[in-house]
Amino acid sequence: MKTINGTLTSAHIEAEQLPQHIGQRVQIHGVIHKIREMSGFAFVLLQTKRTLLQCVWDSAHAAFPLRTLKPDMAVILTGEVLAEPRSRSGAELRLLDADILSVPAAEPPVVLHGKSVNASLETLLDYRPLTLRNMQERAIFQIQAGICSAFRQFFAKNRFTEIHSPKIVFGGAEGGANIFALDYFGKQAYLAQSPQFYKQIMVGVFERVYEIAPVFRAEKHDSARHINEYTSVDLEMGFIARFTDLMQLETQLLRDAMDFLREYHTEELALCGVQLPCITEIPCIPFLESKELVSREYKREITDYEDFEPEEEKLLCEYIQKESGSEFAFVTHYSSAKRPFYTMDSPENPAVTESFDLLFRGMEITTGGQRIHDYHAQLAKMQARGMNPQAFESYLMAHKHGLPPHGGLGIGLERLTAKLLGFQNVRRAALFPRDINRLEP
Amino acid sequence: MKTINGTLTSAHIEAEQLPQHIGQRVQIHGVIHKIREMSGFAFVLLQTKRTLLQCVWDSAHAAFPLRTLKPDMAVILTGEVLAEPRSRSGAELRLLDADILSVPAAEPPVVLHGKSVNASLETLLDYRPLTLRNMQERAIFQIQAGICSAFRQFFAKNRFTEIHSPKIVFGGAEGGANIFALDYFGKQAYLAQSPQFYKQIMVGVFERVYEIAPVFRAEKHDSARHINEYTSVDLEMGFIARFTDLMQLETQLLRDAMDFLREYHTEELALCGVQLPCITEIPCIPFLESKELVSREYKREITDYEDFEPEEEKLLCEYIQKESGSEFAFVTHYSSAKRPFYTMDSPENPAVTESFDLLFRGMEITTGGQRIHDYHAQLAKMQARGMNPQAFESYLMAHKHGLPPHGGLGIGLERLTAKLLGFQNVRRAALFPRDINRLEP
Repeated sequence: MKTINGTLTSAHIEAEQLPQHIGQRVQIHGVIHKIREMSGFAFVLLQTKRTLLQCVWDSAHAAFPLRTLKPDMAVILTGEVLAEPRSRSGAELRLLDADILSVPAAEPPVVLHGKSVNASLETLLDYRPLTLRNMQERAIFQIQAGICSAFRQFFAKNRFTEIHSPKIVFGGAEGGANIFALDYFGKQAYLAQSPQFYKQIMVGVFERVYEIAPVFRAEKHDSARHINEYTSVDLEMGFIARFTDLMQLETQLLRDAMDFLREYHTEELALCGVQLPCITEIPCIPFLESKELVSREYKREITDYEDFEPEEEKLLCEYIQKESGSEFAFVTHYSSAKRPFYTMDSPENPAVTESFDLLFRGMEITTGGQRIHDYHAQLAKMQARGMNPQAFESYLMAHKHGLPPHGGLGIGLERLTAKLLGFQNVRRAALFPRDINRLEP
Repeated sequence: MKTINGTLTSAHIEAEQLPQHIGQRVQIHGVIHKIREMSGFAFVLLQTKRTLLQCVWDSAHAAFPLRTLKPDMAVILTGEVLAEPRSRSGAELRLLDADILSVPAAEPPVVLHGKSVNASLETLLDYRPLTLRNMQERAIFQIQAGICSAFRQFFAKNRFTEIHSPKIVFGGAEGGANIFALDYFGKQAYLAQSPQFYKQIMVGVFERVYEIAPVFRAEKHDSARHINEYTSVDLEMGFIARFTDLMQLETQLLRDAMDFLREYHTEELALCGVQLPCITEIPCIPFLESKELVSREYKREITDYEDFEPEEEKLLCEYIQKESGSEFAFVTHYSSAKRPFYTMDSPENPAVTESFDLLFRGMEITTGGQRIHDYHAQLAKMQARGMNPQAFESYLMAHKHGLPPHGGLGIGLERLTAKLLGFQNVRRAALFPRDINRLEP
């Protein structure tokens, strides 16, 4: 019987290992990015997993004519590694031979190999399978993957357990009409708007839990801030002393993530022209106070005492940055009427809640707060809102049989990425965004 | 303006740090697990994030009567750390004081604090928010989280980039009727059966990608092997020489995961009585050959030449373990008719495919294979099947403009966990399983 022992047959070296092979003959694979003909020789740029590798073709060494190679071909190149102080890695590859593994059937409809893709957002998204191949577009999602790695590292260090909660659910956690319904074997089911109920239940199991997973909001907004499916970084934590503990935790989480990007994603940050925010301390301001501040400083009338207008979030961030230097701002104590039934009211003033949002560069990227952990207190709040606790029986099981004081938060991964990269539209930070008009690709 | 600087106010020590504090007064939080009254003193077992901590109450030291403490209360205990060679950690806590943070409203309907929960699977799942609090149930999902950590570590080491593909899609990748439909702003949309199209597209971007995310299958089976939403560990990899490269990779991936569990989850493995499989080499056998083998060895008639019956998977695993000692077995070269349109046919025999399943302890836990990367070859296979390539335009964009030879695989996380733990029913390895009859909790 044949067996598989774990050794790959297709072992070529990585572009980043090139400087360790100077003087040697190596094989490396990738996709032809660009060919620059010079007089008597040519530069062949090879796209590898993460970096562009500069190769040199000349007729004296190469066993194949230059015209064999065309952009977007997948190839295995054989060459000799030369020291080259002018190249960023200190090495380049002198081509000896080329195996062509695949040949594209057509030229791309947009120019992909420039510094960025020169196209409208619609075109960028219509041709997403191709435009993502552009170096700058790639960098966006390498940075996004980096953020997730940094977050998971932080969660592990702080002893959060990863969970996988169901996305097909029997009811919505956030309430309201913004929920997708589906037929589930003849029963009505919904797509989870958040893992809220499950992460609270799991606080009773693991004390600290997190999940990075899709959530679904059937919001009809066609705005630069909304997509209908997004990746939510959710955490929930038992034994908090107050909701401010969550803000402390998030401050440290974001600080760690910025440090991680600075260390491991230098090239991608440079490619996208990103200036990472410096996080020392994050100012926090109660919601009502922030409304009044924006009204006073920017001579605006307050029309809604319970919510921000997007413009107010921008102005508040502008003001706070001017005053404190911070690009982040916590807004606390949102109105009880506007927060979901599981939110804990403030002991000092039950009209407001032990809750917060985190604003970053003019946009809300996090909602969080302390939850009600006492069963009777939770029942009372539901009844006061005219809700039927029996419809939430399995959720309330956790409260009934004991939950520690706890709270949590959710970070919109695409929004955080978008603001970090200075995008006006959150769609640019979603691989394949879903909005009211877009279900493809 | 107040600021948040990242320092938690509620900093108690962790149970695992106790031995470092012998002779000191410390605070530690958790949930009362059990109280064992002895003559003149009592053991109070405290459930912390991961372990049970043994505390000792006696009236000479404690500032509170023992009856203050009841099971399932969330508490902060103050005590003095004593060396105790008979305890597993080498230390125990002599109680001085207790802050009670929350009190359950009722006793649990099932006994939670035994070695395991003595209840039927249905009861276990009906009371999931509570039964998960049992030590053995907890351990299952700590092990599952460990598997994911190990996988991600492996992916990072092997330079796979994490992606987040959409779960609301315009069409199904796997075809067939097993797909959930939903109304998407007046359009028909579906829940993704797999990230297949997206991970292939992303091979054209990052060469190697992975995703650990929910997938949805509207299968009407009510079997011990099926749930309708599960966590799929998906990877896709460019520049493979053959589909066997993927089997090599998976062998290494699983070996690393077992090593990780052995190192970091010893206690949970012991609690669940798990015997980890030893992975050296994994036997592989072509599908048809394996059918004939089972037929011959177990005197069974072959009724279906294109698929396994569940019983045949079991017998095949039994035979292979007997012959080779391996609890894993790769089955290769499934019939072309039974595999999706993107599967590459074998060059030696186009009636079969460059594909494989991985069986583990009698059940399929992985499906994988090489994909068609050439645009014209893909078009031809679709046309031969009477499919309309225009319905797959954005997917085929990737092929049209160049994709390297590639392939991938998907591992069912719940199935892997279930088989590892020796469960007959995959539901036991899903936190909140979804099946044809169960949408709650």
